[in-house]
Amino acid sequence: MPEIFWLVPAGSILALVFAAYFFRQMMRMDEGTDQMKKIAAHVRRGASAYLRQQYKVVIIVFLIITVIFSILAYGLGIQNKWVPFAFLTGGFFSGLAGFFGMKAATYASGRVANACRKSLDGGLRLAFRSGAVMGLVVVGLVLLDISLWFIALNIFIPEMEPGYKLMTITAIMLTFGMGASTQALFARVGGGIFTKAADVGADLVGKMEEGIPEDDPRNPATIADNVGDNVGDVAGMGADLFESFAASILATALLGAAAFIGYESSAQFNAVIAPMLIASIGTILSIFGVFMVRTREGANQKQLLRSLGFGVNLSAFLIVIASFLVLYFLNMPNYLGLWGSIVTGLLAGIAIGQSTEYFTASAYRPTQKIAESSQTGTATLIISGVGNGLLSASLPLFIIVVAITMAFLFATGFSFAVDSLNYGLYGIGIAAVGMLSTLGITLATDAYGPIADNAGGNAEMSGLGEEVRRRTDALDALGNTTAATGKGFAIGSAALTALALLASYFEEVKMMFVKILDRPDELIAGTKASEARFIDFVVHYEVHLMNPKVIAGILLGVMAVYLFSGLTMNAVGRAAQKMVDEVRRQFRMMPGIIEGTEEPDYARCVQISTRGAQHEMLLPSLIALLIPVVVGLIFGVPGISGLLLGTISSGFALAIFMANSGGAWDNAKKYIEEGNFGGKGSASHKSAITGDTVGDPFKDTSGPSLNILIKLMVMASVVTVGVAVAYSIL
Amino acid sequence: MPEIFWLVPAGSILALVFAAYFFRQMMRMDEGTDQMKKIAAHVRRGASAYLRQQYKVVIIVFLIITVIFSILAYGLGIQNKWVPFAFLTGGFFSGLAGFFGMKAATYASGRVANACRKSLDGGLRLAFRSGAVMGLVVVGLVLLDISLWFIALNIFIPEMEPGYKLMTITAIMLTFGMGASTQALFARVGGGIFTKAADVGADLVGKMEEGIPEDDPRNPATIADNVGDNVGDVAGMGADLFESFAASILATALLGAAAFIGYESSAQFNAVIAPMLIASIGTILSIFGVFMVRTREGANQKQLLRSLGFGVNLSAFLIVIASFLVLYFLNMPNYLGLWGSIVTGLLAGIAIGQSTEYFTASAYRPTQKIAESSQTGTATLIISGVGNGLLSASLPLFIIVVAITMAFLFATGFSFAVDSLNYGLYGIGIAAVGMLSTLGITLATDAYGPIADNAGGNAEMSGLGEEVRRRTDALDALGNTTAATGKGFAIGSAALTALALLASYFEEVKMMFVKILDRPDELIAGTKASEARFIDFVVHYEVHLMNPKVIAGILLGVMAVYLFSGLTMNAVGRAAQKMVDEVRRQFRMMPGIIEGTEEPDYARCVQISTRGAQHEMLLPSLIALLIPVVVGLIFGVPGISGLLLGTISSGFALAIFMANSGGAWDNAKKYIEEGNFGGKGSASHKSAITGDTVGDPFKDTSGPSLNILIKLMVMASVVTVGVAVAYSIL
Repeated sequence: MPEIFWLVPAGSILALVFAAYFFRQMMRMDEGTDQMKKIAAHVRRGASAYLRQQYKVVIIVFLIITVIFSILAYGLGIQNKWVPFAFLTGGFFSGLAGFFGMKAATYASGRVANACRKSLDGGLRLAFRSGAVMGLVVVGLVLLDISLWFIALNIFIPEMEPGYKLMTITAIMLTFGMGASTQALFARVGGGIFTKAADVGADLVGKMEEGIPEDDPRNPATIADNVGDNVGDVAGMGADLFESFAASILATALLGAAAFIGYESSAQFNAVIAPMLIASIGTILSIFGVFMVRTREGANQKQLLRSLGFGVNLSAFLIVIASFLVLYFLNMPNYLGLWGSIVTGLLAGIAIGQSTEYFTASAYRPTQKIAESSQTGTATLIISGVGNGLLSASLPLFIIVVAITMAFLFATGFSFAVDSLNYGLYGIGIAAVGMLSTLGITLATDAYGPIADNAGGNAEMSGLGEEVRRRTDALDALGNTTAATGKGFAIGSAALTALALLASYFEEVKMMFVKILDRPDELIAGTKASEARFIDFVVHYEVHLMNPKVIAGILLGVMAVYLFSGLTMNAVGRAAQKMVDEVRRQFRMMPGIIEGTEEPDYARCVQISTRGAQHEMLLPSLIALLIPVVVGLIFGVPGISGLLLGTISSGFALAIFMANSGGAWDNAKKYIEEGNFGGKGSASHKSAITGDTVGDPFKDTSGPSLNILIKLMVMASVVTVGVAVAYSIL
Repeated sequence: MPEIFWLVPAGSILALVFAAYFFRQMMRMDEGTDQMKKIAAHVRRGASAYLRQQYKVVIIVFLIITVIFSILAYGLGIQNKWVPFAFLTGGFFSGLAGFFGMKAATYASGRVANACRKSLDGGLRLAFRSGAVMGLVVVGLVLLDISLWFIALNIFIPEMEPGYKLMTITAIMLTFGMGASTQALFARVGGGIFTKAADVGADLVGKMEEGIPEDDPRNPATIADNVGDNVGDVAGMGADLFESFAASILATALLGAAAFIGYESSAQFNAVIAPMLIASIGTILSIFGVFMVRTREGANQKQLLRSLGFGVNLSAFLIVIASFLVLYFLNMPNYLGLWGSIVTGLLAGIAIGQSTEYFTASAYRPTQKIAESSQTGTATLIISGVGNGLLSASLPLFIIVVAITMAFLFATGFSFAVDSLNYGLYGIGIAAVGMLSTLGITLATDAYGPIADNAGGNAEMSGLGEEVRRRTDALDALGNTTAATGKGFAIGSAALTALALLASYFEEVKMMFVKILDRPDELIAGTKASEARFIDFVVHYEVHLMNPKVIAGILLGVMAVYLFSGLTMNAVGRAAQKMVDEVRRQFRMMPGIIEGTEEPDYARCVQISTRGAQHEMLLPSLIALLIPVVVGLIFGVPGISGLLLGTISSGFALAIFMANSGGAWDNAKKYIEEGNFGGKGSASHKSAITGDTVGDPFKDTSGPSLNILIKLMVMASVVTVGVAVAYSIL
């Protein structure tokens, strides 16, 4: 193993060490008054109870899938023997990251509220560094898993025809992403249903019927609501990006191996480790960025945003320089072009974030117009939010189109020739890696949001002074802004990752194809033969747009998206209904609650959300896992190819539509609460609250769940590729 | 010309004769009291004013496009000289059909109200036969245009290499569909914006603020609302289906010509005229079906529905038999299989209608659940409607997948071999023709709805007795049911037509390709060479799923859908806002209105809707026309191929989601009004009214406009195919 590879495990260990350091630092802080401790403990207990329950379900699902993979691998002999194990470690590490991230978040929020009793900067830094625990654990564990498998497989996989060994290794490692995907599916869908059932339930009865403020300790669902922020926005978001980070690196490694079959082996090796190195260096720069985040007392919203932005942008700027050096030292062919691909990916991430902000922040026209339309009632507010959300989806689609086209053209030196196809796809993959390279710090920004939100909740419920509330409110408002951009980033990176995965799917098919037709000569024939191989592949599998199987696949891919999001949307409706019934019941049965003399049964509400989430997440999850297999069995490789493109394109758009509609309604409400169009308590405000509630499952359940769907469907197709290749009916 | 062809013009003339007969019959009926006449005249004048204004805009657009086509045809030399003329006649005939349809509808509604003063059966028959004027004019004019062009081109186009003449003729005729498409775009988008601006404006102020009932003559926007039903649901729907009918026949004719290059010329000729014959015979059977519709006094909802259903189903049943005979006598290869394709298309149309009914009628669980969720407020009602709508979109997608797969397999005799590809695509085309063959009567059912609705409005405004209102209400309720199924059918047939058009796009590319590379030998080489031609084509244009240009195209196709529907949605919001301001102004400035002593200024409201619609429809329309050209210029044929599939798949799903969400909210409101969950005036009812208003632009503007988008983008790509082939940058 060349020395430079050891940077990968080094980055991993550094990330984990600093995560532990931030965690310990946070744990040393004071948790505040008894009331504060009690509330924090309630939330912590609720979150743990939920996670335990979720992991139980997940373990059963993992066992079933592992058995299926084992049959495929050992029984039918069309999968590699290592697949079930790689699948398991991916799921295990992702689960571990979610566990630590949530622990840190739930321990932190009370302490952040307490820190705000002293200073704003203290609160910000504590909240942000606690968020960084999540960020660093995620990237650290991804890099650890990758390092371990790469070292082990290099030792255990025997030498093969030139170039074939690295193809095999990277193909096996990609299935590690399947484990992460499956874990993320349950985290996002389950967490999303939990958090919105609690939120909608709490708002509908508390705010609308009883007229008590948000986070009022008299609301039985308020603890569940706070727990929900953690399980949805911390654990769910973490698992989502864990998977994007892992899958983008692994897919790019495989594309690198495929692009260099037939070249000298060091070139291929370098192409494989380049994405790992960039991710690892990005992680180290993220740690550096986290230390750069600080603010001063009395900072306003803009200054706070600039503080966070400084850390994030510094890391991004440094990775631009560092990645150039990496590509240069690895002596990659056309390293300048490839560097252009990385920069393209980074810029696309920023552009999507900006677009999200434009369409959801109250500082801009779209959200202000939505708020304005509340003056003619709820209906026009909803229409305007939907119209705006639909429009807003077109911009990120355009950005991704520009990004993949430029990333491809940069990598190939502006050629679309067939023999540079593989290197161009590698360029798209490395653009995704570039976008995600500083995930350590961007994820810290995401996890910061719910921590600040919970800190605000804790301060409210503990009756802390006005000054403290003002500080936690400032932190919370900042969190809302980062949450919106974070969502845009998560979706954008999911789409780019999914496209890289799709390209690696085709490579996997080619590998199977060669194996089945028993013509390894072509595989090793090198670039000269790549055009012939490609034509052979296209013609053999009919992966072209006139093939009705491809068209059927595309339509089925869109179908999967609508089915999945319809199910998750209805799931929130049903689970929220149960929560409403329970909260109403408690108010009715325990009249002391509303008078403040009796403590509501918080745990029961947590339990209802937990049960609702567990119960409701199974059907959509099953669909996401089964559709690729069924379509593969019927329509084979052409059907799957269409299916994945249909799901990615349509799912990406629907996800952004939902996230932005929801975000804009949320902020339109806040804009009205700032005193516009009648302010708090006006008819406009009532309409805006309804809009916000409608947006809840849009932006926090169905929307983000689609991130997972588009990646998981590709992953499931990748790992079951042999089924579609060997057993398809049509 | 063989004798059997003359059945096509015969069908056309029969349709037009019977349309004239029904029109005259209707005009002979009495228009009722003076008040009834006055109201009918108001609506008629408003509708004419709107149509005049719209045709002005359309004429300008047509002139511009004709100039562009002329440059392409005569200047750059990459289009056929006939194209600009075919384009113009398509637009002209479609406009004519809209004009006659709307005339009939606006003359009929008052007379239907008057007929209901005597009997229910009289009212039903008059309303239905007046709707049949629209249905028969549409199919009659399509068949007339096709007949005239086919005869003329057969005379004027010189003999060429075997098989090439019919390819050329059908390729020219296809551009006739582009004219129909452009006309339909403005009819659907403009009409959709008009009708919902009026409807939303009338409801928001009248129902919600002033508390006066629907169709109350005191509401200044009520005439505009009634006009809107005509311009949206009659003229818009008519133009939409005019285009589907024309395009499905013409695309199939082209696919037939392509499938039989190299066969003996009579086989090719028969394949070309088969879709025309089936459409013509379907038209004759539709006339027969119209005569079969009657009911008896006191018939309930179910019996009325059965009366309409009897006529429609009888026509459908007879066309199943007739089409078998046509294929048999034409001696088509594998005529049994091809007949299976036709039946598949018919069944798919019925299945999509059923699915729409299930997801939108209050007799079934989904809509009842939406109504139920109004009990926890507006937010849960909206969430539940959106969730339900998303879910409901997946079923028609599945139906279309099954339909295209089966239609393809039946036609090829269960083969996916490359050399049967063309015949399989012909099978998909003929399935679309089958679905639309009895359009004469299905469109009569669609146009019946707004006529009955307007009759109800007229009866209400004229203060007719309870008994009459009961009859018009019964007819109106029936119209609501047929409107929902009609929408499902319109979308389903648009999707199938678009797929047939897509296949014909590839044929056009192949023709250009051969011309440009100057290798006509391959074109005439016949089936033996078809596999080589095909591989050549796929490889030359890289129309495969690994090509980033294809992927970019797919994403851009989805982008176009979201951009377009976001714009149309926002357009309704803005136009409705202006209507709200105007209605409020009238109530404020003219206090006599609400007391019933002063007549509101109806014409001003019509004018506002008209201006709003004309102003707002330009941008989305421009986008729909320009995107295919721009994408073709940048990404060439692979980009366009992806673009079209992205638009069709994603647009189809979004259209159904919107139509069904809107339909279900509408019927949930009616379900509550029947006394469920609190009934009229309850909080649930208020929520349901909001849901209904949100659904208005969903189901009547953005949703149906997408039908046009998916067809128009393919059409625009077909007619500008030379640009993408010869001038693309990448």
